[in-house]
Amino acid sequence: MPELFQVVTVAEANVRLRAHITPIPRHESLPLHEALDRVVAEELRSPVDLPAFPRSTVDGFAVRAADTYGASESLPAYLTLCGEAPMGRAPEFTVGPGQAALIHTGGMLPSGSDSVVMVENTQYLDPTTIEVVRPVAVGENVIPVGEDVSRGDALFPCGHRLRPQDLGGLAGVGLVRVPVVARPRVAILATGDEVVPADADVAPGQVRDINSYTIAALVRRAGGEPVLCGIAPDDPVKLEQMARTALEGADLLVLSAGSSVSTRDHTVNVIEALGKPGVLVHGVAIHPGKPTIIAVAGGRPVFGLPGNPVSAIIAFGLFVAPALRRLQGEPETDPLTIQAVLTLNIASKPGREDFVPVRLERRNGVLHAEPVFGKSNLIYTLAHADGLVRVPLDLSGLYAGDAVEVALF
Amino acid sequence: MPELFQVVTVAEANVRLRAHITPIPRHESLPLHEALDRVVAEELRSPVDLPAFPRSTVDGFAVRAADTYGASESLPAYLTLCGEAPMGRAPEFTVGPGQAALIHTGGMLPSGSDSVVMVENTQYLDPTTIEVVRPVAVGENVIPVGEDVSRGDALFPCGHRLRPQDLGGLAGVGLVRVPVVARPRVAILATGDEVVPADADVAPGQVRDINSYTIAALVRRAGGEPVLCGIAPDDPVKLEQMARTALEGADLLVLSAGSSVSTRDHTVNVIEALGKPGVLVHGVAIHPGKPTIIAVAGGRPVFGLPGNPVSAIIAFGLFVAPALRRLQGEPETDPLTIQAVLTLNIASKPGREDFVPVRLERRNGVLHAEPVFGKSNLIYTLAHADGLVRVPLDLSGLYAGDAVEVALF
Repeated sequence: MPELFQVVTVAEANVRLRAHITPIPRHESLPLHEALDRVVAEELRSPVDLPAFPRSTVDGFAVRAADTYGASESLPAYLTLCGEAPMGRAPEFTVGPGQAALIHTGGMLPSGSDSVVMVENTQYLDPTTIEVVRPVAVGENVIPVGEDVSRGDALFPCGHRLRPQDLGGLAGVGLVRVPVVARPRVAILATGDEVVPADADVAPGQVRDINSYTIAALVRRAGGEPVLCGIAPDDPVKLEQMARTALEGADLLVLSAGSSVSTRDHTVNVIEALGKPGVLVHGVAIHPGKPTIIAVAGGRPVFGLPGNPVSAIIAFGLFVAPALRRLQGEPETDPLTIQAVLTLNIASKPGREDFVPVRLERRNGVLHAEPVFGKSNLIYTLAHADGLVRVPLDLSGLYAGDAVEVALF
Repeated sequence: MPELFQVVTVAEANVRLRAHITPIPRHESLPLHEALDRVVAEELRSPVDLPAFPRSTVDGFAVRAADTYGASESLPAYLTLCGEAPMGRAPEFTVGPGQAALIHTGGMLPSGSDSVVMVENTQYLDPTTIEVVRPVAVGENVIPVGEDVSRGDALFPCGHRLRPQDLGGLAGVGLVRVPVVARPRVAILATGDEVVPADADVAPGQVRDINSYTIAALVRRAGGEPVLCGIAPDDPVKLEQMARTALEGADLLVLSAGSSVSTRDHTVNVIEALGKPGVLVHGVAIHPGKPTIIAVAGGRPVFGLPGNPVSAIIAFGLFVAPALRRLQGEPETDPLTIQAVLTLNIASKPGREDFVPVRLERRNGVLHAEPVFGKSNLIYTLAHADGLVRVPLDLSGLYAGDAVEVALF
């Protein structure tokens, strides 16, 4: 059987695709509480200084540092109490030379004071006089105005995905609405005469639609909005019709290819017909997942993922997820992996990247990766795994005892 | 200043707390598409065999393996075509001795056949006769009935959090609704006279509420449903009233303590008064985050997190997130960390665990962790970091060049 397509590496496939993807221009303004995991649509700058006033970081006494110079256990500085800094309000008094004001963690320094002596380094001589037994420097135990961020400082660049602490940071400067990129709409179309909806009764020869569920969930994880477009039969006319409808109003289309050879042939032809520039990649040097199709139609990425559920998940992670991140304006990053010790040899063929599901297990405190062997068309191979180990292009395998990088599901 | 509380280790604090947490008994039945990241409420077993019929894994010819024994390039086996297995339907014919049927990947094996010869190992002699040049064994290139899972097999245990591939697995066996544990309701109450809502105008001495935003987002990440209960003033009567109201109908209460010493004292007394057994831990051997309070009131965990936003996030990760997972019935697991090389020395004090924010950076392919030093009350310290490095209890620091484990945000 002739090789019908020219297989390319993962890196080459992503280079070809990347050239065609630009961030989607739809933005929305969200209340901060709804912005978790969303991507910032324009650079955010602080409208204010944080903190807006000098704050004490300890419980103690606000003083003029010069009044404490040389203070020690044997020769304390004596200061006169002139008030207590209230919480949540500006003190209405001034700390003069030789004076000190009671202050609490988070309190605003009274004017005149420039530092705070910790309560541990003081004692009351009488109700209006304290002894200070250690000197403080100007600014000691104080967060000055704008130390966290200053007015005008860049907070987050365009393309930054917001985490819990980032929402806190925005709340701190009063940015309670945030402009984010709209979620990319991802049309998902399953194909195959043998595929029926998961809630249907199945007759002999039919299988339930697995890929629409896994792909929709993977789309959600990558920040997209899945749009389920049903199951197309093994009929190129009908498939093209359904693919065109699916692509309308979508930012990206994922076809889960049927498994028969005729459907696989249809799929690439239908994708090619959807728009320019058409198919960029037909076949990638990976196992499983080789028959992956990558295309662009009228500016929108289109993927033909293998029908085999394990291959579909792997190809999604390598190509669709990065495309979704790019559509949201996120910068390119290497996926972070966990290091573990391989427990068994893995054979591979040089010239392709192999992906092997593994289960992680801690043995004597060391993380081990145990390969879950199983035909790649068995979805429960992945359901029983924690992640994937990649065998690089140029190796013929990995050995038990090797330190490997595991990409988690 | 006397030590007002007895500091315990992280491990000891979690042992004390764990004894009091049982999974919440509220379950719900969700459509599969809404069940991503939810926790299975009862063991799921397969109602069917997957696949339900013997499926071909290749394109080729369904045969009786015995007919191919000894076949080679020089001495092929000759078989007569008796039909084509349709996709999505049971073949209506039988493969007899000396016969072969055209079959596609994913097709159902006709009765009589027990294996599939790959198309690459055959050629047509005439339109009704093929030559087979390599033998196949019984079952070769076939997924037998139930190989993925068999009827009655355990699919996922109670307490398993559903990932994309798991949803696919459930779809494959027709389980399109799944019983999951209800999201724990987490009441969040900020405190402090100096704290105002993030959208308010701030007067001198006031600060915007940061912790309600970070804690709500962390609750969502841990599978809970945040319920924002406002900001209580530094008044023990009012605080207790608001805490009681917050706890009603909640599965867990998080108080973000005010920062002044009087509020900190109120907080522990108010928490103690909320119900039995009361405060279990007041002070943990960590930095930052030492003044953390852990309590249980009438079966519900109550946490008093430090007002300092960085401390609050660290204490949340160590205590509240595991409690939320336990409330959902998830098993205890070590958090997974990423290995990196430390770029700078970190000093610490033996007897406490130190947590230092780091930025991750790949240098010559090796992941490095660059400490982001900064006062722990500055939220942007964390906004500019990718994760935390922990200095263990018994070390006085870590050195530049050490391999460290980074817990990602």
